[in-house]
Amino acid sequence: MEMTDGGFGTNQTVAIIGLGLIGGSYAKGLHNLGVRHIIAVDLDTAALEQAKRDGVIEAAYTCGNEALRQADLVIFCMASQIMIRFLADNRHYFKRGALLTDVAGIKGHTAETIAALLPAGVAFVPGHPMAGREGQGYGMASADIFRNANYILVPMPQNGAEQTDAVAAMAKALGCAHVVRVTPEEHDRLIAYTSSLPHVLATSLVNSEAMTSMTKYFIAGSFRDGSRVADINAPLWTNLFLANKENLLYEIDRFSTALQQFATLLQEEDRTGICDFLQQAAVRRRELIHETHTR
Amino acid sequence: MEMTDGGFGTNQTVAIIGLGLIGGSYAKGLHNLGVRHIIAVDLDTAALEQAKRDGVIEAAYTCGNEALRQADLVIFCMASQIMIRFLADNRHYFKRGALLTDVAGIKGHTAETIAALLPAGVAFVPGHPMAGREGQGYGMASADIFRNANYILVPMPQNGAEQTDAVAAMAKALGCAHVVRVTPEEHDRLIAYTSSLPHVLATSLVNSEAMTSMTKYFIAGSFRDGSRVADINAPLWTNLFLANKENLLYEIDRFSTALQQFATLLQEEDRTGICDFLQQAAVRRRELIHETHTR
Repeated sequence: MEMTDGGFGTNQTVAIIGLGLIGGSYAKGLHNLGVRHIIAVDLDTAALEQAKRDGVIEAAYTCGNEALRQADLVIFCMASQIMIRFLADNRHYFKRGALLTDVAGIKGHTAETIAALLPAGVAFVPGHPMAGREGQGYGMASADIFRNANYILVPMPQNGAEQTDAVAAMAKALGCAHVVRVTPEEHDRLIAYTSSLPHVLATSLVNSEAMTSMTKYFIAGSFRDGSRVADINAPLWTNLFLANKENLLYEIDRFSTALQQFATLLQEEDRTGICDFLQQAAVRRRELIHETHTR
Repeated sequence: MEMTDGGFGTNQTVAIIGLGLIGGSYAKGLHNLGVRHIIAVDLDTAALEQAKRDGVIEAAYTCGNEALRQADLVIFCMASQIMIRFLADNRHYFKRGALLTDVAGIKGHTAETIAALLPAGVAFVPGHPMAGREGQGYGMASADIFRNANYILVPMPQNGAEQTDAVAAMAKALGCAHVVRVTPEEHDRLIAYTSSLPHVLATSLVNSEAMTSMTKYFIAGSFRDGSRVADINAPLWTNLFLANKENLLYEIDRFSTALQQFATLLQEEDRTGICDFLQQAAVRRRELIHETHTR
């Protein structure tokens, strides 16, 4: 079998289920790696046609059966609920020995539901890249989203080491910097802080009553960056937020505590306190970015 | 007199007082425009030497007198308090007809204080670019910070049109997209929302108790962008925040109201309400960025 340096097999058949921004990014990234057979399933025939014209996929399908019969590796790039419905409808079509993985941002109890639907000889390793970008759809897909990103695996008890290692090898081959393994509970708690909360802050910033027709002339880098992800896919994130409600409410609360701590220091004109607060933030941010070797 | 397309004279002598990140960026930007005589005053002799080696400045001074005698245009790139002290100490050295401007981010009542210090025949037009970047010092300076940025002028009643127009022409020549004129009160109110608040949110985000040794593996673009300006110059921003205390507390309050509105929708699992909140944010963000023609 042909392998990348990291041990990811390139002469297998990979099926991407859902060819949007993330699915398209996998397709492009795997194509760049020289994966021989990349096929895609989507209802969006325009996206499928574009990917074929780009030479990124070899074959396109609008339903699962024929695609799944060929696939050694299946990557589900869609919301959890839709993935579960797709699995229930297509469970008999998987090739024996197929390895399945997903990119759902919130894990919760979906793994158990999925495990119950899998036929014998088919393994599912939950995971996702800590990557993405603004916008949506295949047109915004880019192999670059994986570069230096972290990749999270949330293995199930029944996963074998060679199965989790295979997904890890793919992540490394796509350019990810670290592959981390955590439980579903740890995952959802951490993600509430590092991903959901920044989206809530960005949307709340632009939804403040302060926004007027003059605002646009007064924005600079700090507002641009702080509001970037406010250009959000609203239905998708509504689902993600609701699926992780308790953790997210807890993180909004902890953030509000820090914000209120600053407001109190400012109210009291505590110069040393404000400077210490800012200095702590500067050190933390610098360490964080240094440690992750990214921007 | 040689002019740029926008009417900015390039054969004048421009003195940059304070050759840090912002001062250095002016020096580099004006140098790129072909301004003949750029001189700088700073106590940091290493920065001055570097700028001379870069060919960006023609002459370097560690005190004001000799530099100010030559300068047609003087750009103060330092904190307001230090600028006022510098002006008080050097007021007798300005060339008659010299035009002065600054980059102080909070205006308050500094203009009146400065006006009282000016000798006859010397004009001061308060302003600043809506631009900047992380880090500090001449080493981080870049002419690019002006590209497509907005430039704010906060004219004083005694400013003549040709004086404000001259600073506006410089801003346009440096690459700024729009030049906006506002009162000091409007300025400080707007800036509390568009600049101070995003810095407070970024520092509060990384100062949340949620930050642990696992955080680094779970950050992606939203956290990186939302925390970028947490790498802050703490003493500088402590002064800016204190100088605009009431406006900033008001904006923290309005932001908290929007955040709490989201938290309540989530608590109540109001799917439609959450989706509407996010959709409004997406539309606002897209309009804002479209209108400013920048990232």
